[in-house]
Amino acid sequence: MAEHDSGRKKRFVKKKRDSVSITELKDGVLNGDRSCLAKAITLIESNAEQHYAMGQELLQELLPYTGKSFRIGITGVPGAGKSTFIEAFGEMLCELGLRVAVLAIDPSSSISGGSILGDKTRMEQLSKNPRAFVRPSPTAGTLGGVHRKTNETLLLCEAAGYDLMIIETVGVGQSEVMVRQMVDFFLLLVITGAGDELQGMKKGIMELADALLVNKADGENKPLAEKTRRELNQILHFLIPATKGWSSKAYTCSALKNEGLKELWNVILQFEKQTKEQGVFEERRLLQKQEWFHTMLKERVLSDFFFHQNIKSVLPHMEKRVKQGDFTTSQAVEELLKRYKDAIH
Amino acid sequence: MAEHDSGRKKRFVKKKRDSVSITELKDGVLNGDRSCLAKAITLIESNAEQHYAMGQELLQELLPYTGKSFRIGITGVPGAGKSTFIEAFGEMLCELGLRVAVLAIDPSSSISGGSILGDKTRMEQLSKNPRAFVRPSPTAGTLGGVHRKTNETLLLCEAAGYDLMIIETVGVGQSEVMVRQMVDFFLLLVITGAGDELQGMKKGIMELADALLVNKADGENKPLAEKTRRELNQILHFLIPATKGWSSKAYTCSALKNEGLKELWNVILQFEKQTKEQGVFEERRLLQKQEWFHTMLKERVLSDFFFHQNIKSVLPHMEKRVKQGDFTTSQAVEELLKRYKDAIH
Repeated sequence: MAEHDSGRKKRFVKKKRDSVSITELKDGVLNGDRSCLAKAITLIESNAEQHYAMGQELLQELLPYTGKSFRIGITGVPGAGKSTFIEAFGEMLCELGLRVAVLAIDPSSSISGGSILGDKTRMEQLSKNPRAFVRPSPTAGTLGGVHRKTNETLLLCEAAGYDLMIIETVGVGQSEVMVRQMVDFFLLLVITGAGDELQGMKKGIMELADALLVNKADGENKPLAEKTRRELNQILHFLIPATKGWSSKAYTCSALKNEGLKELWNVILQFEKQTKEQGVFEERRLLQKQEWFHTMLKERVLSDFFFHQNIKSVLPHMEKRVKQGDFTTSQAVEELLKRYKDAIH
Repeated sequence: MAEHDSGRKKRFVKKKRDSVSITELKDGVLNGDRSCLAKAITLIESNAEQHYAMGQELLQELLPYTGKSFRIGITGVPGAGKSTFIEAFGEMLCELGLRVAVLAIDPSSSISGGSILGDKTRMEQLSKNPRAFVRPSPTAGTLGGVHRKTNETLLLCEAAGYDLMIIETVGVGQSEVMVRQMVDFFLLLVITGAGDELQGMKKGIMELADALLVNKADGENKPLAEKTRRELNQILHFLIPATKGWSSKAYTCSALKNEGLKELWNVILQFEKQTKEQGVFEERRLLQKQEWFHTMLKERVLSDFFFHQNIKSVLPHMEKRVKQGDFTTSQAVEELLKRYKDAIH
C-alpha cells in the first residue's frame, strides 16, 4: 500500500504536493479514492507550515461528511497480541461487508522519531484487504501533535466512507485517555496468567474500558484465561462504568484460533444499539468534541511554552536551583513565565 | 485564634503589614511564635503584588529550616467525618507530646470566594490546644493558587517547628492528586454502608492511598464497617501500591468513641520507619519537589492563558463554532494562541 511506503511518500511530498488542489483531494476522499485519502493524510501529518494550512482547509471542507462511523479504541500491554487480534477481528468485519480503517498510535516511537512498529510487517494480511485501510502511527512531533494527527486522520477516513474506525494505542502515558476521548467504545486487551499480571496493569486503565478481552484463551492457557476473566469481572464490579448505563464486562478470545471474535462483535453491536437508544452515544460525541478542543488547546499552550528556546535552555538549571533551595518554587515559576513573555515581545 | 479571625486579619493587612520586617517575621516563625506564623501565612496568602514578593523572600529565607515534619494527607467523601476524625486524631497526637499543624484545602469554596467550612466552628477543640495550629483554606484565587498557598503554608509551619502536618482536602477535581504530591502518607477516609458507596468513590483515588480508614465503626454500624473494610482490602489487592514496598490496607475506627486511632498511628509510624529505612521516603521527597515545580509551572502557564482577557472574552464563541463545524479544532486552537501572543506584544 502506498501509504506504507515512506520512499514514495517522500517523493510525493517533494514533487507532487502542490500540483494537487484541495478540491481534487476533497472529491477524491469523498469518492473513497484510497490514493487521495493517503495523500490527504500525508498533508495532515506534514510538519511544514504551508502544508498545515492546506491540511486544515481540506479538513474544514470535509467536516460535514464526518462523524458517521462507529469508533473503537483498543489498548493493551505489550505482548497482549493487539496486532494479531486487530488483524483477525478486522478480517472478520470485512467479511461481514464492513469497511474498516485501522489507525495506530505509538507515542514512544513518535517522540524518538522512529517507529518500532515495523510498518510494513504489521497487519500485512489486513492491509491487502480492499475493504480495509491500515495507517501506521504518525512518526514525528510532540505527543499532542501525534494525537491531533490521529484524530484528524480519523475524520478523513470517515469522510472517505469507512464504517468502522479502529484506533490502536500501545498505552504509554496519557495515550489511552486521549484515545478514550476520540472513540465510542474502548476495549482493553489483557494477557492471561497467574494473576500477577493484573497488578502490573496501568493505573486507572480498567476504568476507561467498555469491555476487557483476555486474549490467547487457547490450548493449555484456556483455564488460566477463564480465571483471569473471572478476577477481572470481580474488580469491574467495584468500578464506575466507563459508559453511562453500560456495565463493562470481561470476555475471553483467541485471535489465533478465531474464537470469541463474533461474540465480542455482538457485545459491541449491543453497546451501539443501547447507547444510541438512550441518547448516551450522541451525548458523549458532543462532550468529546468539547473536551477534545480543550485538551488540544492546553497541549498547544504548554508545548509552545516548554518547547520555546528561552525556556528549554534554562529549565534544567532552574529545576536544580529549586531543588537546592536557592529559589522558592513560585519564584522560579514566575521567572520562567517572565522569560517566555519577554521572548514573545 | 488570631488566624481564624478575618476581622483582625484585615486590620493587620491594612495597617500593620509594612511595619513588620521580613527579618522579624523570620525570627518569629523560627521561634515558633504563633502570631508571627499567622502573619507570615497571611502574607503568603495575600493576592497583592507587593505582598507576594515579600512572602517569597520570607519563604526563601526559611527554606533551609523546612522539610523536617512528617506530612499526612487526608481526604474522603463529604459525610465521612473528616473534621471529627482530625480533631480526635490531632488531640491524641498532642497528648503524645507532638506539635500538630492542620491545613485545609477546600477548592470549591476558594473558587466561589467564600468558605463553606465555617472557619470558626470547625475543630474548635483542637484549635484551642496549645500544641496544635489549625489553619482554614485560603479563600481566594485559582485552584493552582490555592494549592501553592497550602504548600507554602506547610513549609512555614515546618519552619515553626511543627512535627506533624495534616493536610485535609474535600476531594474535588484534581485536589487529591495535588495533596498526594505534598505529603508522605495519604489517608483515605471512607464511610460504611451497604457496599454501594464504594461505587460512588472517585475514580483512581484508592490508588493514591497508603491506608483506607472506615470511620463510624461503632454501634449498629460496626458489622457493616467490618464488611466494607474486607471489601476494600479485596480491591486493594489488585491495585498498584501507592508507595513502593508498602502494601496499603483498610482499617476501621470510630472517631466519636476514640477507637482505632492509636492503631492507625502505629500503622503510620511503621510506614515512616519502613520508608525511611528503605530510602523510599527521601526518594519520594526529592521527586515531589521536582513534580511540584512542574505542576505549578504548568498551572501557571495555563492560568495565564485562560484568564487572559483576550482569551476569556472569545473562548465560548470559538467553542461554539468548533461544535458547529465552522472551524477545525486545530484552526481554533491556533487562532486562540495567536490572540494570546498578540495581546502580550
